[in-house]
Amino acid sequence: MMRALLLCAALTHALVPTLPTPQRTRPGAALTMMAENKKDVAVVILAGGTGSRMKADRPKQFLPLRGKMIIKYSLDLFLNDIEGICKVVVVLAEQYRQDFKEYADRVTFADPGAERQDSVKSGLDSCPDDAALVAIHDAARPLVTPDEIYSVFGDAREHGAAVLGVPVKATVKESGDGKFVLRTVDRSRLWEVHTPQVIEPALLKRGFAKVDSEKLEITDDVSVVEQLGAPVRLTLGEYTNLKVTTPDDMVVAGQILDQRSGKRGWRKLLFWK
Amino acid sequence: MMRALLLCAALTHALVPTLPTPQRTRPGAALTMMAENKKDVAVVILAGGTGSRMKADRPKQFLPLRGKMIIKYSLDLFLNDIEGICKVVVVLAEQYRQDFKEYADRVTFADPGAERQDSVKSGLDSCPDDAALVAIHDAARPLVTPDEIYSVFGDAREHGAAVLGVPVKATVKESGDGKFVLRTVDRSRLWEVHTPQVIEPALLKRGFAKVDSEKLEITDDVSVVEQLGAPVRLTLGEYTNLKVTTPDDMVVAGQILDQRSGKRGWRKLLFWK
Repeated sequence: MMRALLLCAALTHALVPTLPTPQRTRPGAALTMMAENKKDVAVVILAGGTGSRMKADRPKQFLPLRGKMIIKYSLDLFLNDIEGICKVVVVLAEQYRQDFKEYADRVTFADPGAERQDSVKSGLDSCPDDAALVAIHDAARPLVTPDEIYSVFGDAREHGAAVLGVPVKATVKESGDGKFVLRTVDRSRLWEVHTPQVIEPALLKRGFAKVDSEKLEITDDVSVVEQLGAPVRLTLGEYTNLKVTTPDDMVVAGQILDQRSGKRGWRKLLFWK
Repeated sequence: MMRALLLCAALTHALVPTLPTPQRTRPGAALTMMAENKKDVAVVILAGGTGSRMKADRPKQFLPLRGKMIIKYSLDLFLNDIEGICKVVVVLAEQYRQDFKEYADRVTFADPGAERQDSVKSGLDSCPDDAALVAIHDAARPLVTPDEIYSVFGDAREHGAAVLGVPVKATVKESGDGKFVLRTVDRSRLWEVHTPQVIEPALLKRGFAKVDSEKLEITDDVSVVEQLGAPVRLTLGEYTNLKVTTPDDMVVAGQILDQRSGKRGWRKLLFWK
């Protein structure tokens, strides 16, 4: 019986290896950053969402994933493992702060606004005036890696704004009316973007001023920079930096965590049949 | 201990409910089709892929998912549960056919070609001349439902060509050089398309003639219809109709199957911690 189980584990391991890792454009970014020893990046973690897609009793970023609250994965990463951070701001409604007592002396809390951009502005107000960059990260993305973070920091330092993203894999059609296909989109030109989105604070503020005065609609943070006509660098990230928005995302996120911690082989044995 | 486990199961069940199901536009399509009692849809299942993304020793559609080969989910569905089918053609290399002996008298095998469109043409050659529609389905999409199939059949019957798809959820940017953002794409206009893609055979043949003579590049089957300027209906499908291309897709697909068979609560207990 035991031998059969081990054989089964070996076979499934052979069939289900790791995800392909895209080639990073800036492999030396982390070293450069550490060598310069600057602490001038402010991080704003957005945790103001309501989680309606999970139909859960609390927003998705507060759900446990392998025994740890989703938001705490990226929070711990920025606080403990990333060089160059001058401040971490968590945009979080007052009612949830009781679960973050252990962070009280290391982070600043800011109030969420009605829309995403209001929450970003609120977080930005708590950032030091002399921060060279502000990195805006979604609390529902627990799987971002140090390598991705250093890459996007490096690109933002060079170009003023940068965002993590990956090439779109699906076949995508454009439709004007949601009923008929208008055209097949050239997917080689399409990128799905993630966070952190990293921007010089002055640029972000100028962008917000334009968005506000012209009442423009924006969906993410670097969009305000695009509205100014300023460059935004696409930094090649990883497909694993997913946003946990549905129960199935939770399953995949758990699997990726297990794979990283070397548990995957045994865990697979439990539900591979 | 048992009480703690049951409590844990109940809690996780409360936190992780079903995926939201999009509203179908044609709820009565299945009934209409059955009432008419026509058997005039030929199905071509494409199983000619090489599965390089899985890094496995056989193409992904031949991997087991909960003990059953991925391709056999949709094959069984078309053969046993869908009304109106006149023929099922499986585009499959000779070397894999030994695993399909139980289907020998119910399906026709066709040889795969070098490109996807060559495989489609090969399958089309084995379809009856009087088929009203040909439905092309990817063997690596095991989770398509009868409701989705009847909807897309109904739309194709009405408009000549139809494809299952879902609105894109991610933030998408366009880039000309893969380095800088050109613009944020209005995602309310974007659809990720799935299969089946269902087309009148005469229309498909005309499309292929144009694609061949003008040496056009196409990525999917309804693209050839778009090239003719003919309408292609987008049929609202489900996010669960995923293409199994990576090991993590396998995990999600297994979860969805369990959810459908009511096993999810117990399975979750095993790897939720």
